[in-house]
Amino acid sequence: MTAYDPNNVFAKILRGEFPCYKVYENEHVLAFLDIMPRSPGHTLVIPKAPARNILDIKPDDYAHVARATHKIAAAATKAFNADGITVQQFNEPAGGQVVFHLHMHVMPRFDGAALLPPASRKEDGKVLEDHAAKLIAALKEG
Amino acid sequence: MTAYDPNNVFAKILRGEFPCYKVYENEHVLAFLDIMPRSPGHTLVIPKAPARNILDIKPDDYAHVARATHKIAAAATKAFNADGITVQQFNEPAGGQVVFHLHMHVMPRFDGAALLPPASRKEDGKVLEDHAAKLIAALKEG
Repeated sequence: MTAYDPNNVFAKILRGEFPCYKVYENEHVLAFLDIMPRSPGHTLVIPKAPARNILDIKPDDYAHVARATHKIAAAATKAFNADGITVQQFNEPAGGQVVFHLHMHVMPRFDGAALLPPASRKEDGKVLEDHAAKLIAALKEG
Repeated sequence: MTAYDPNNVFAKILRGEFPCYKVYENEHVLAFLDIMPRSPGHTLVIPKAPARNILDIKPDDYAHVARATHKIAAAATKAFNADGITVQQFNEPAGGQVVFHLHMHVMPRFDGAALLPPASRKEDGKVLEDHAAKLIAALKEG
């Protein structure tokens, strides 16, 4: 497998070199909005530890990502009154991966609404700000 | 959310009332082949605890499922010489869920090969036996 590239965009977000619409953070993970959401509230959960994907991440770090995914899924359902949640995690180009720092997609779903194709439309900044605020509020309510 | 239905097919598999092509089991989870694989070696990881999906599963149980998913992904890459892995986990009908016991899909991927549509073709029993044996062997090698 290709080695971890510390210059990928999510590594830059972790180092604060790139902005993000942050919704959650703890010692092990960061969660922020996908700026090209496939559904409203589409959130990415990433480990702080450098890991290209599931094939090189440490088991504990994958579990930390899963625990945050679980938390975000509940909050997103509440924040967006979602009818369902789709979780996806892509590994290597053949597996659908585009950014090479492990990330879990958490996508709120609504009856009758298909996911947008990946990376099809950049969301408006105001909408993303509003969605991040809603998620943060729902996470606080617990 | 609808309550957990103890008569779903994965609950029957857990109780031994239904057969499965088992590849891995521990105190908390069971992993077995999807009999309508979207790719060769398509494996499902489920918690032993009753949980409809991510919205009612306990955080620890979701983490156990993630740890097993991590293990299966590595083994599947080795067993099938896969180029990538796609992980998916669907919640509620709007989220793509069809069987209402939480399950993580682990799908080996190969350059240039798309996933088959969900539930499009029942795999031959001999092929599934062979794939299960390959996965079990790769898991043993660690």
